[in-house]
Amino acid sequence: MFSAPRLEIETTLKDFLERITRDLSEISAELTPVSAEITSFLATGKRFRPLFAYAGYLAAGGQNDGAQLKNMLKAATSLELLQACALIHDDLMDGSDMRRGAPAVHRYFENYHLENSMRGDKTQFGLSAAILLGDFALIWADKLINESGLSDEQLRRLLPLNDLMRIELIAGQYLDVRESAATTSSVERALKVARYKSGKYTIERPLHFGALIAGSSDETNSALTNFGIPLGEAFQLRDDLLGVFGDPETTGKPAGDDLREGKRTVLTALAIENFSTQQADIFNAHYGKLNITTEQISELRDIITEVGAPQKVEALIEDLTSSALQALKSEHISENSKPYLNELALMATKRKI
Amino acid sequence: MFSAPRLEIETTLKDFLERITRDLSEISAELTPVSAEITSFLATGKRFRPLFAYAGYLAAGGQNDGAQLKNMLKAATSLELLQACALIHDDLMDGSDMRRGAPAVHRYFENYHLENSMRGDKTQFGLSAAILLGDFALIWADKLINESGLSDEQLRRLLPLNDLMRIELIAGQYLDVRESAATTSSVERALKVARYKSGKYTIERPLHFGALIAGSSDETNSALTNFGIPLGEAFQLRDDLLGVFGDPETTGKPAGDDLREGKRTVLTALAIENFSTQQADIFNAHYGKLNITTEQISELRDIITEVGAPQKVEALIEDLTSSALQALKSEHISENSKPYLNELALMATKRKI
Repeated sequence: MFSAPRLEIETTLKDFLERITRDLSEISAELTPVSAEITSFLATGKRFRPLFAYAGYLAAGGQNDGAQLKNMLKAATSLELLQACALIHDDLMDGSDMRRGAPAVHRYFENYHLENSMRGDKTQFGLSAAILLGDFALIWADKLINESGLSDEQLRRLLPLNDLMRIELIAGQYLDVRESAATTSSVERALKVARYKSGKYTIERPLHFGALIAGSSDETNSALTNFGIPLGEAFQLRDDLLGVFGDPETTGKPAGDDLREGKRTVLTALAIENFSTQQADIFNAHYGKLNITTEQISELRDIITEVGAPQKVEALIEDLTSSALQALKSEHISENSKPYLNELALMATKRKI
Repeated sequence: MFSAPRLEIETTLKDFLERITRDLSEISAELTPVSAEITSFLATGKRFRPLFAYAGYLAAGGQNDGAQLKNMLKAATSLELLQACALIHDDLMDGSDMRRGAPAVHRYFENYHLENSMRGDKTQFGLSAAILLGDFALIWADKLINESGLSDEQLRRLLPLNDLMRIELIAGQYLDVRESAATTSSVERALKVARYKSGKYTIERPLHFGALIAGSSDETNSALTNFGIPLGEAFQLRDDLLGVFGDPETTGKPAGDDLREGKRTVLTALAIENFSTQQADIFNAHYGKLNITTEQISELRDIITEVGAPQKVEALIEDLTSSALQALKSEHISENSKPYLNELALMATKRKI
């Protein structure tokens, strides 16, 4: 269903990465690991956000062929670079070792430091390189938009939304960090983090991104919000489940990663609310401990399951998804976009990766 | 000489910071420390880059009054936010404790974690908040440009330059980190870092930033390059001297900060080239050691001075500055801008801060 836009997204990424590799090599050969690492980082990915932008563009009546579609997909591919920034910085903040089945960027540069017998502290070098690679990705995202061939009017509509989306993303990231450092757990606050970190950033704003390029009406934007917000929250709740129960083979991250990092999510907040004193003691003893063992992860999974938290989260996902699909009936969303939006809703909430 | 543009820059910053404070508080009250910290971070600063943009704008024939000037200064104020991103991330990468006489951003958030008896590791919280505040600043810089009131044509000229400038900045930062991790020291490589980190980013590109808004010719851009590149290198060399010999009272950073951080600069590369074996032993024993004492900093300063490195750097600064001032004679730079450019050249190279 998405093979044509997917191909365009992959081609755009490939061309762009080749170009920045060339540009960086002209500055200095020492920048080679930087372009190599961003290229390898972006080699895989679900491309969810550009595909949501594509569907939003169709929803607002954008033509499904021609130069305008091509330019829109180019601009929307910038969302993969923005997401790369978010993930690279996020892994550093969380102290994650793995991403997409490979070492996280800061670990990659730590190894690079080690293998090249460099001077000083490898951890600090890895940290520095990961901060800078994230900064690069944020700037490259802009460059891709600016070079996408969009008209002045399209850019004028898009750029304020792009700024807003990025501010919401970083605000969501901060609230997430803040929540994980909070002494109390709260389902309500965890839902707010989910709303900003993913609800808006992952789905609603990419839909608007595409819709604004097509010249959407306020009614269409509102209809897409009604579809995107609950779906984005459902997406994040699925992420929370995968972070605790996901299979490392498919997620590309270690089992129970969120438990090791002590991430406060709706899932853990619901579990904490329902723990017995004895379960709470087990939880507090292991949750968020960097040296947590495989057995302790199993134990935490067991007690989270015992109090029914995963089922509650599954029920929430179902409610949110059905409320999104209900919103999809709006007359302000073009009929030809609905099969795409429906398919994306399934991909976002039923995934194992 | 710069009181009118300075006032406009300060007013723009104040209004913008008030607006983002309001916007963030609407998302969540928990974002208050974020807006408070960026506001306090930007309260002081030399405003060099917006002032260079102003001079570049005049150099290319921009009118020294009216709405166009006002819009240009608004857009140029974004350079202060970009610089905030660079400094916040830089301090984290260098492990610096102080900036502008106050705790560095990551230290501020470490203290915040401590004072609020938060959960988890305060260092990781400080790191996360500083990464995110830098990301915010990079995005806010874009927002300020997008909202500055520049015309479509002005934006179309400016945005590619803005992307290029930021890529050069991050590339320079990476080369700097890479150089400090190199096992050998090289005057040539240190000069290249100085060129990208400051030569282009601090002076040449801000000049172009303003010039392009005024609609500059290729000849004017080249003339500004001939002025800006040597001056920017001189600026960075002054920075290197201040990083080792600067007075903490005026720099707002601890004495000998670059020695503690093991920063490889043209100054240290020149010193290393000329050390006796005994001096090299002293240098290697203390340079880049986090627990360096005040006495050891004095000792390092003494041997760097003994081999004549500061005088060599002063001579380089003088040569570079006079080559910049020579380039200022170009007929492609408007006459009325020359007193401004001349004054900025002095401010950039004679400063104690």
